[in-house]
Amino acid sequence: MATTFNSVDPSTGEIGPAYEEATADDVQAAVASAADAHRSGALADPAKRAALLRGAAARLRAAGDEIVTTAMTETGLPEVRLRGELERTAGQLEAFAAVVDAGDYVEAIVDTPDPDAKPIPRPDVRRMLVPIGPVAVFGASNFPLAFSTAGGDTASALAAGVPVIVKGHPSHPGTSERVAREVSAAAADAGLPAGTFAHLPAASLEVAQALVDAPAVKAVGFTGSYAGGRSIADRAAARPEPIPVYAEMGSVNPIVVTAGALEARAEAIAEGLAASVANFGGQLCTKPGVVFVPYGEAGNAFADDVAKRLEGTEPTVLLNERLRDALRDAVGRLEQRAERLGGSPQAGGPGFRHQPSAYEADAGDLGTTPELLEEHFGPVVLFVRYGTRDDLLAALDRIEGQLTGTVHAQEGEDVATIVEALRERVGRVIFDGFPTGVAVTYGMHHGGPFPSTSAAAHTSVGMTAITRWLRPVAYQNAPPALLPAELKPDNPLGIWRRVDGELTRDPA
Amino acid sequence: MATTFNSVDPSTGEIGPAYEEATADDVQAAVASAADAHRSGALADPAKRAALLRGAAARLRAAGDEIVTTAMTETGLPEVRLRGELERTAGQLEAFAAVVDAGDYVEAIVDTPDPDAKPIPRPDVRRMLVPIGPVAVFGASNFPLAFSTAGGDTASALAAGVPVIVKGHPSHPGTSERVAREVSAAAADAGLPAGTFAHLPAASLEVAQALVDAPAVKAVGFTGSYAGGRSIADRAAARPEPIPVYAEMGSVNPIVVTAGALEARAEAIAEGLAASVANFGGQLCTKPGVVFVPYGEAGNAFADDVAKRLEGTEPTVLLNERLRDALRDAVGRLEQRAERLGGSPQAGGPGFRHQPSAYEADAGDLGTTPELLEEHFGPVVLFVRYGTRDDLLAALDRIEGQLTGTVHAQEGEDVATIVEALRERVGRVIFDGFPTGVAVTYGMHHGGPFPSTSAAAHTSVGMTAITRWLRPVAYQNAPPALLPAELKPDNPLGIWRRVDGELTRDPA
Repeated sequence: MATTFNSVDPSTGEIGPAYEEATADDVQAAVASAADAHRSGALADPAKRAALLRGAAARLRAAGDEIVTTAMTETGLPEVRLRGELERTAGQLEAFAAVVDAGDYVEAIVDTPDPDAKPIPRPDVRRMLVPIGPVAVFGASNFPLAFSTAGGDTASALAAGVPVIVKGHPSHPGTSERVAREVSAAAADAGLPAGTFAHLPAASLEVAQALVDAPAVKAVGFTGSYAGGRSIADRAAARPEPIPVYAEMGSVNPIVVTAGALEARAEAIAEGLAASVANFGGQLCTKPGVVFVPYGEAGNAFADDVAKRLEGTEPTVLLNERLRDALRDAVGRLEQRAERLGGSPQAGGPGFRHQPSAYEADAGDLGTTPELLEEHFGPVVLFVRYGTRDDLLAALDRIEGQLTGTVHAQEGEDVATIVEALRERVGRVIFDGFPTGVAVTYGMHHGGPFPSTSAAAHTSVGMTAITRWLRPVAYQNAPPALLPAELKPDNPLGIWRRVDGELTRDPA
Repeated sequence: MATTFNSVDPSTGEIGPAYEEATADDVQAAVASAADAHRSGALADPAKRAALLRGAAARLRAAGDEIVTTAMTETGLPEVRLRGELERTAGQLEAFAAVVDAGDYVEAIVDTPDPDAKPIPRPDVRRMLVPIGPVAVFGASNFPLAFSTAGGDTASALAAGVPVIVKGHPSHPGTSERVAREVSAAAADAGLPAGTFAHLPAASLEVAQALVDAPAVKAVGFTGSYAGGRSIADRAAARPEPIPVYAEMGSVNPIVVTAGALEARAEAIAEGLAASVANFGGQLCTKPGVVFVPYGEAGNAFADDVAKRLEGTEPTVLLNERLRDALRDAVGRLEQRAERLGGSPQAGGPGFRHQPSAYEADAGDLGTTPELLEEHFGPVVLFVRYGTRDDLLAALDRIEGQLTGTVHAQEGEDVATIVEALRERVGRVIFDGFPTGVAVTYGMHHGGPFPSTSAAAHTSVGMTAITRWLRPVAYQNAPPALLPAELKPDNPLGIWRRVDGELTRDPA
């Protein structure tokens, strides 16, 4: 008899429809089918991959009403956010189709031969990136579209030409299933084999573990908690054949506000910060969790202003009961360590809600109480008050790897050391803005040193996310007929290549 | 009292000078000094890094006689090989200096802002690669210069701007110490801090383990055995902060010879193969260990010819006693599993020697006896005889990840499926040549799927080896004055950058 699990509406706590849990046989079948698809070479055709990505985007848009309605009841996220997220998801699929069209993501390099080279003659060497094989994707609960079933990991992997097996997130099973159906249909439309894409709904650990263990799976993409990401990374590293895990695991996204910035635009920063902390329940990887504010009257007024704005925000619905409970526990611990700003209104209303709130501690406390730097996944912010520049730099030095770091300063203030301290420990440095709202651009970097991710050299947003699913192969003295199109002497695809060290589109 | 260990001349077995083993304090001091050097920002200056690399090359050439003489007594390798290797090592350092000069290894990407972008406005995003922090390098015994103290790992890491701590290989301690002295002097000449480069001589495991465990060490480069590489990778993955390990661990480098190739040029292939197997004691990562030869008269004659050539080769000196013993044991096991071609002459002479030799098995045996595919690190080759094309493809399918795969065929033969089978499991596919003699070029790929390396996406030879020591950072809406030169609007370095998706050297 099949095991089932139910969706839950977090805005009411009501139980929704039942979904069948994938079995061990389902996992093996999906992996075998993905391995067949990889072996078939069908995904090597860039035109088919681009058609799949564009087809999936069009299908998701066409099914948008149904997808958004389902996602609303499963996540408690508002319609406007989910409509935006659907468009972002579709746009991301299309952006990767454009990367496939352009073709130079394979980083082709050609070295022409030199029989007189010393100490040994130089052969003809042509190198490009090729797909690594089937990959597993673990979506996130907080972006049920853009970081889930057809999100950035899936889009970049399909663009790279690797089959994808998605472990559906149990917090939005109906959304995931609906999206998966469109991706599978788009693969069929594009003439790609069934193993190109698979979706395994699961609430248990077994499916996740079986996927990570499957010998034919060659890499894992993950977005979620540190505990989840680390356990997958540890498991993958202990395989007979270890595989890379690209886990994006969480961040407190420090913000530094200088005295000059407070003087010039305290209210604007307070308004932006309160929104960045509280929007969508603060359930964003890049939600600012720790904000450094100078001691003094202006800093006090700023912190109080933000606290008041949060206190005045309606209690926000969290994604599920587990996250609500975890946040309540974490905030309970935080209240032992830091001072709460403002009152303690209870989060009223049905379902799983939390009242946005602010706390305060001294910069020196980070040394004695490193737990202050734990991520609080929800609408919670900690102000860390600093005296001198040295106090601030010493406090920044205690911060581990983060996705982002932000500085609000005024022209004329010397913030070079602050920027350097942030750059040393984050993946993205933001100036006079807020880290939430990650634009999907060519150069966006959504990653960072451990523990914000398990692989600091890679990103899960932006066009370079494709490199996670590729590995180089060099051809030495190959007859032109046996070379892939990307490496042929006449460069039939017209792609940029590095020839004898210089970038060019010329033949070689 | 300091612990010491001695060098040994493998051509005679005679004990050489004593060397002081690095202590736990030495490790901590080297790591702290490297962390200081990283923090100081001194290595951010490309001109200083280029000066260090060119200075090290010049100093190694100037000290060439002494280095080569020492290396000969420690490795048993012939002078001509070591002179060539010294030149290769110096050339490699200079090639990375040129990469630093060119500057576009930082993979700069600029996305210009678009306030009207949907679903969210697009900020100004500028992304480049930055150094990850201090790294540890474990050199190999078989290339005492090009893959050791100032070898490819060290050269690429210093080019990337990360401080390097070398664990000196105990099989050539005098060579390592002599080379290290020149690299340190070159760092001082270039005005770089002492922590830029450190050398820790050690024969014990403790130093290696302490280095891998040190929190300030952010990555490891390793060339050596599977057992050594895997244990370091496992240890690094189990750290509180896991770090990447770029381990190049071994390979049997399969070669496929077709009936057509045998008919056209059996003798030339036999001559080249015997040299590739036996040169330098066959102690090369890319030594061909398994050669697929068709059944029949021509195949018999070919295999016998190679076996005779190997039998007629002087017993070669191996690098040290441990490798000689390990090879003797492995060959003992091989003799239980495969047939020896030719007689069994004993390896006479002093020191640690082994007689080059050839073995033969049936392609079907690879299924029942996978141990046949173990690496034999030394002048040993196994012929695997095949009947049909399907037999060959089935046998290739049993081969795990390798550094290289080679095919010898004639024009007109359809070898596409063979090339595809090789490409799927190797890092470099060679046509009508031999895998030994790895040219240092821009696009050379010296890597491959597990277990040939621990990181299939990376190479330890060629200019792209630099990316192992870098991670991306994005700047969002940064004031131009706070941007690194590589990302400034006017592109003062004149480097290639991807601007809104297109490669250009124009301002942005």
